Parts: sequence; C-alpha cells; structure tokens
Amino acid sequence: MRILGVDPGLTRCGLGVVDSGSARTVTLVDVRVATSPASDDTPARLAQISAVLESVLDQHRPAAVAMERIFARSNVSTIMGTAQVSGIIMLAAERRGLPLVLYTPSEVKAAVTGEGRAGKEQVTFMVQRILGLAEPPRPADAADALAIAIAHAWRGGAAPVGSAATTDAQRRWAEAEKAARRRG
Amino acid sequence: MRILGVDPGLTRCGLGVVDSGSARTVTLVDVRVATSPASDDTPARLAQISAVLESVLDQHRPAAVAMERIFARSNVSTIMGTAQVSGIIMLAAERRGLPLVLYTPSEVKAAVTGEGRAGKEQVTFMVQRILGLAEPPRPADAADALAIAIAHAWRGGAAPVGSAATTDAQRRWAEAEKAARRRG
Repeated sequence: MRILGVDPGLTRCGLGVVDSGSARTVTLVDVRVATSPASDDTPARLAQISAVLESVLDQHRPAAVAMERIFARSNVSTIMGTAQVSGIIMLAAERRGLPLVLYTPSEVKAAVTGEGRAGKEQVTFMVQRILGLAEPPRPADAADALAIAIAHAWRGGAAPVGSAATTDAQRRWAEAEKAARRRG
Repeated sequence: MRILGVDPGLTRCGLGVVDSGSARTVTLVDVRVATSPASDDTPARLAQISAVLESVLDQHRPAAVAMERIFARSNVSTIMGTAQVSGIIMLAAERRGLPLVLYTPSEVKAAVTGEGRAGKEQVTFMVQRILGLAEPPRPADAADALAIAIAHAWRGGAAPVGSAATTDAQRRWAEAEKAARRRG
C-alpha cells in the first residue's frame, strides 16, 4: 500500500511517500519539503504548500494519508499556521476519497525507534535504516514525514521488538551512538 | 463592490454576501450558515463547509473576502477547527485571486455599532438596520458574517458618527434597548 506521511507546517511541510509491502518492508517512493516564505501573506503561503501537496498526490496516488496530530504549544502563531495547513491537507485527502489517520509525535517515535521520547537525530537515523537510504533524509521535516508514513505502514503501535529489520537498525543506531560518544 | 464576509467555524460557518454602493449604502445579496455535525470526522466536516463556501463563491462571484481574525481562546479544540476552516477559506480566496482581509471582532463591532465591546444582540440589530432587513439575521453566525462584510465595505474604521443611516439605526437600537428594559 502506498502511504503519504505529512508533517504539517506553514514554513516547512514534510511530504513523504512510501510503499509498504509484506513482512514489514517499507520502501521510499518520494520525499519533498514544501516551503513558503514568512514574508508572504498567509493565503499565498497556503497556496504554495497546497500546490506541492496536490502535485505529490497527482504524481504518486497514495491510498492513504497519515499526518502528525497537532497539539497546543507555547507559540500560538505557529499553531495557527500549522492548523491551517492541516485543514488544507485534510480537505485534499477527503476530496480524493483517501482515508486520513492522525498520529501523535510520540506514537511515531515509538513506532520507528521503539522509544516515544526519541530525539530528532534518532528518528532520522532509524528512517534511513528502515528505508535503506544511502544518506539520512534532510531536513528533519522530511525525516518526520517519512517516519509518520512508516508508523502508518506499521500501524498497531510500536515496532515489534523481535523484528529483524528493526533490531538490526537499532543495533546500528546503538553502535553509531557509541562511536559518537568515543569521538566526543 | 461585492464582498463575502466570513465568520469561520467548523460547527457553524457564517457566509454573508453584500454589495456596497456609493454613500455607504450596503445591500444584502445572500447569507448562509454552513454547518457540519460534530459526529463526523474533521476531514468530512471541512469538506461540508468547503462545499457551501465554493457554492457561494460560484454563485455570487464576490470581488473580495473579509474574515474574522482568530485569536487564542481557552478552548484549544475549538481554535483548531476554526483555524482549519480559516485555512480552507484563505486557500479558496487565493485560488480565485480574491483579496482577503482580516478584521478583529472588536473592529467589526466598532464598525457596525460604534462600540468595540458591543454584544451579539446589538450587532444583529445594527446589521438588520444597516441592510434594511424585515427580520434580524439568525443565527448569530449569519449576523456576524454580514457585520464583517459591512465592516469591509466601510473599511477605514468605525462608521462616521454623523452618517444618517448609522445615527438612525443607533437611535432605534437605543429605543429597542429602552423598550426591552421596560419589559424586563
């Protein structure tokens, strides 16, 4: 099944497309980060994000959309822009008849790293390992969007501890952390 | 100039269309309240609001959109839905090349009643008087949407104290209030 994962935002909106196969295999199809400059007014910014979203939907025809659930944070103006973008994404999904599922950041982190409070670098590392990418996906919004798509592919909670792909990736992560500590 | 005034909301979204002429005359073209049931999921609710909005835009072809600016309130879940609807309205306006202007509730109240802290009933009364309607516009979301459109038609701040239409309406409001006090 093809899944579009979305990390909604007005300045940067991560859009990650993956294909999920049998035995928990997940492969990268495309990842983009739609951006809009803060100097533009909000309607123009929303139109810029929307144009990239529609282009991704047209090109890749996902069967489902998974998006990060937004919570109240300290910065109200940031929430407003994120909420406005999330509304546009929900409407675009609904118009195309695509089911849309929301995941909390900790659900996504738990799914890809096994730890709900994992840091951004760990999420990026695990997304790279799970998708078998040569380079870590950058910026963080791209990695987050892919992590959300992976979480939906693996829906049902955190990755099973015993799964080979995950344990291998988790081992590599532990090694990378150890190496970083040695260097630091 | 034809103006669409919008009081954004997910449960009830007021959409008021007015024509503004010379000498501050404003006439009613149409007013609708798009609704969506809380039992539906958010994407479906956004699609219901969007369908009515697009129908109003198609039918009446306004030259500008005026919308209430959203502020942080105590109920975060209400703000989220309102912000999502506002994003959809902004995008729809931008896609049609319509300028969109935001007004605070107190700017709107000051424009139509001369008092930024006016109550809902006073706003409804003044909208009825300004547009020369036989009945007060109901529900409050309809009156608010029309008040926003009127505020945009009269942009530049509060209604001039000396304007005949307004002073006449304000006199009638004062009389109605007095009568209500007598009855109460």
